[in-house]
Amino acid sequence: MADTWSLGKHTFTSRLLVGTGKYKDFPTMQRALAASGAEVVTVAVRRLDLSKKGAESLLEWVPKGMTLLPNTAACFTADEAVRTARLGRELDMGELVKLEVIGDKRTLFPDVEGLVQAARILVKEGFTVLPYTNDDPVTAKKLEDVGCAAVMPLGAPIGSGLGLRNPYNLRIIMETVKVPVLVDAGVGTASDAALAMELGAVAVLMNTAIAEAKEPVLMAEAMRDAVAAGRKALLAGRIPMKLHASASSPMTGLIGS
Amino acid sequence: MADTWSLGKHTFTSRLLVGTGKYKDFPTMQRALAASGAEVVTVAVRRLDLSKKGAESLLEWVPKGMTLLPNTAACFTADEAVRTARLGRELDMGELVKLEVIGDKRTLFPDVEGLVQAARILVKEGFTVLPYTNDDPVTAKKLEDVGCAAVMPLGAPIGSGLGLRNPYNLRIIMETVKVPVLVDAGVGTASDAALAMELGAVAVLMNTAIAEAKEPVLMAEAMRDAVAAGRKALLAGRIPMKLHASASSPMTGLIGS
Amino acid sequence: MADTWSLGKHTFTSRLLVGTGKYKDFPTMQRALAASGAEVVTVAVRRLDLSKKGAESLLEWVPKGMTLLPNTAACFTADEAVRTARLGRELDMGELVKLEVIGDKRTLFPDVEGLVQAARILVKEGFTVLPYTNDDPVTAKKLEDVGCAAVMPLGAPIGSGLGLRNPYNLRIIMETVKVPVLVDAGVGTASDAALAMELGAVAVLMNTAIAEAKEPVLMAEAMRDAVAAGRKALLAGRIPMKLHASASSPMTGLIGS
Amino acid sequence: MADTWSLGKHTFTSRLLVGTGKYKDFPTMQRALAASGAEVVTVAVRRLDLSKKGAESLLEWVPKGMTLLPNTAACFTADEAVRTARLGRELDMGELVKLEVIGDKRTLFPDVEGLVQAARILVKEGFTVLPYTNDDPVTAKKLEDVGCAAVMPLGAPIGSGLGLRNPYNLRIIMETVKVPVLVDAGVGTASDAALAMELGAVAVLMNTAIAEAKEPVLMAEAMRDAVAAGRKALLAGRIPMKLHASASSPMTGLIGS
Repeated sequence: MADTWSLGKHTFTSRLLVGTGKYKDFPTMQRALAASGAEVVTVAVRRLDLSKKGAESLLEWVPKGMTLLPNTAACFTADEAVRTARLGRELDMGELVKLEVIGDKRTLFPDVEGLVQAARILVKEGFTVLPYTNDDPVTAKKLEDVGCAAVMPLGAPIGSGLGLRNPYNLRIIMETVKVPVLVDAGVGTASDAALAMELGAVAVLMNTAIAEAKEPVLMAEAMRDAVAAGRKALLAGRIPMKLHASASSPMTGLIGS
Repeated sequence: MADTWSLGKHTFTSRLLVGTGKYKDFPTMQRALAASGAEVVTVAVRRLDLSKKGAESLLEWVPKGMTLLPNTAACFTADEAVRTARLGRELDMGELVKLEVIGDKRTLFPDVEGLVQAARILVKEGFTVLPYTNDDPVTAKKLEDVGCAAVMPLGAPIGSGLGLRNPYNLRIIMETVKVPVLVDAGVGTASDAALAMELGAVAVLMNTAIAEAKEPVLMAEAMRDAVAAGRKALLAGRIPMKLHASASSPMTGLIGS
Repeated sequence: MADTWSLGKHTFTSRLLVGTGKYKDFPTMQRALAASGAEVVTVAVRRLDLSKKGAESLLEWVPKGMTLLPNTAACFTADEAVRTARLGRELDMGELVKLEVIGDKRTLFPDVEGLVQAARILVKEGFTVLPYTNDDPVTAKKLEDVGCAAVMPLGAPIGSGLGLRNPYNLRIIMETVKVPVLVDAGVGTASDAALAMELGAVAVLMNTAIAEAKEPVLMAEAMRDAVAAGRKALLAGRIPMKLHASASSPMTGLIGS
Repeated sequence: MADTWSLGKHTFTSRLLVGTGKYKDFPTMQRALAASGAEVVTVAVRRLDLSKKGAESLLEWVPKGMTLLPNTAACFTADEAVRTARLGRELDMGELVKLEVIGDKRTLFPDVEGLVQAARILVKEGFTVLPYTNDDPVTAKKLEDVGCAAVMPLGAPIGSGLGLRNPYNLRIIMETVKVPVLVDAGVGTASDAALAMELGAVAVLMNTAIAEAKEPVLMAEAMRDAVAAGRKALLAGRIPMKLHASASSPMTGLIGS
């Protein structure tokens, strides 16, 4: 039986979602998207240059069959984000939306207050809302309560490549909400992606780690494999950690790092 | 061009090496070995029951085409290890040997003094010697100097599942020796294997993490994917770590963990 | 020149702030408070039993000369917290307030939306507000903007003893706000407290780590020393991290853990 | 009752041991040694310039009453180390010796084979031998077996400032040997020293972290306080780690970092 997961009316097999920003050119992006095996690709509505047609338009370079996930990157208020989401729908990009309400230009951390407000409005308007949030369990619960289809906590700041800086909070979020938890942002390399899946994330979304790698297409393959590896390792049931093989009990957290 | 690596006269594509201990039964072992995609499989010469024939013999269950890597597990002196290696050769198991000289029954840490002695002898006798060692760079250099074909430092104690407890020493070993560095022991889950490859290991050897997982066959697949992912991520060139995307310089190690 | 710090009209020398909850009895609490060297002690207004007089009253057991920091523990809305803060002032506990608006009974994470609302009101009423918050830099900035005298991000969940789970976010908060940053919650042992100070925290507030240690008075001394040690180490300017002494450049963050 | 520890015929109260290398001048060294509260100071016999007399001689600047611990730094063979230890005794530096047999000029890791050889000889000659070793439990046991008075595993390479890179091995060493375990090398800042003591080290020896701090005298104070803090925290019995305060069981090691 296939190991699938769902978002609103969509069902997916791949657990890697990818972005379209920061590539050096569209052909490289296209090859990386294909190599990633991703079924969902996120696109910044505000960064679409609607005057471009044909091969000059980013959307032309998205491999056929991928599900579009328009996002509200570069929106700094709930109002901007709501209007941007609506624009995406008017452009026929579908009812999914990755909701970003940025609270700080420098670090790109979300403004969780604006995020919850915008989510509430967009859910009522029939969007399937996937909010990019921080790793705060209380905010995650609010986002679930207003009807978001998933929550997408960051592993580390966007573009930082720092990996999962606080797996503890991610674990608490997974204990707290019933909607799917996707890790969004922070992944730097393959082991980070595997770790996110091993922690129990339903899927992982990334952009910079692939787009700005020295070899984006090869890194896309690495990430495809890493997400698959982490998912399988979770399902396969890992061995417990012990100080050594003869230790009579699993490690308890006396050693912090 | 294929991304291969070599040990003595052998050339391999897979960078995962697997063991044959601790499986609940031979059929499960066989399916896990196949699922792992490994080309090299290690077998404890001392644990072979030579009175068993046909389907009762472990060797019958090793998938055809895999390269045997006899090991000297359960040897506590250089002399025992040397005699065990010779026995393996007499049994037609080939000239490769994974050399273990165990210094402590409880933790299974190697006795590095005996290890270097045994390695020196076996190299002179024409073996292609792969020593299981600790993460000490000085010992790694001695093993290279006596002619070992590779060094195999542990990531953590055998069977502990603790992952790579000291990536710093592994990195120093990789800077210190010219022979291939394989990480042997300590891997607990897929992200550990990916991380070992990202650090620059030529390959990873594991046994318990697969054999004692709840679903060994699925974990074998996970490890296959994880090793491939980590290798590709290394070659693809990961993004630098920064405190956040706008930070002007990569992180230096002021934050220890 | 003394190394002091200020909160509103108060100036302090000790950088350890302590709580009064969870002690097995008042005499033990009193000795631990004294041993800690702390000048500020926080008291839960809602947990004061105002019917108790004399030796039965917690406040009687607070060493003379300590500055009271009434807190709004066990408040789950902005409104409750505001009313509790006012009650503290009516009880002559001064104008300082450690503001807690709890968003989740189980984990005791703050509700940052309610926190900012309550802070805005209390600042206008003349309180010197110290909000217990999560490690979100955007929320920290909002708390500064509404006039809080400091921000107090958690190192880990209250009572968890997990130490500083995300030093990266704490560092970003310190770069983001100009008011003092105090680490509140999460400290489990002395090295955690030292680390918080080394990261640049102005002070550390803790309760469980002392009150529930096997020997609270000795742990209070340990924490006193650890906070002093971490502060001095910060001022003394630590050596850079390098892979080894001959390495030509400081470590950059290629090794995540 | 005082919390003391012993080495051979000596009993000490301070658990910080300090070095004399790398200071910019003798007066700074003298003030730092005094500020550290250390009772034991280690001196490299090979680096003593015996032609210098009075104020030009390093030994003149060691505060009165400190116990000298001559060391064999810069010795690369067992033979060199043995001869250097004897020279120290002839110079009336006492019977204690910090034994170093360096295996690699670049990283200053010990040569454990030469170390055990030299230790065996020096113990027979009546020295109280404190070997600087790596974090290998098998070597630690050999050193105990040949009669060393303590073992001194490194936390990280000399001068690296990386802290305790493998607390797991240090813990295993403490379980393995009965002689005192002192952490020697690797400490970079105060929290590292506290952590070493919390793990169960009997004492900590450091040099670079103090001598090359921007303000060595203040860092010496920080280290004095940190070692005291870590020791007290160990004795006081820390609270268990939990995912959050309501978690029903302590953390087991599912989250590796």
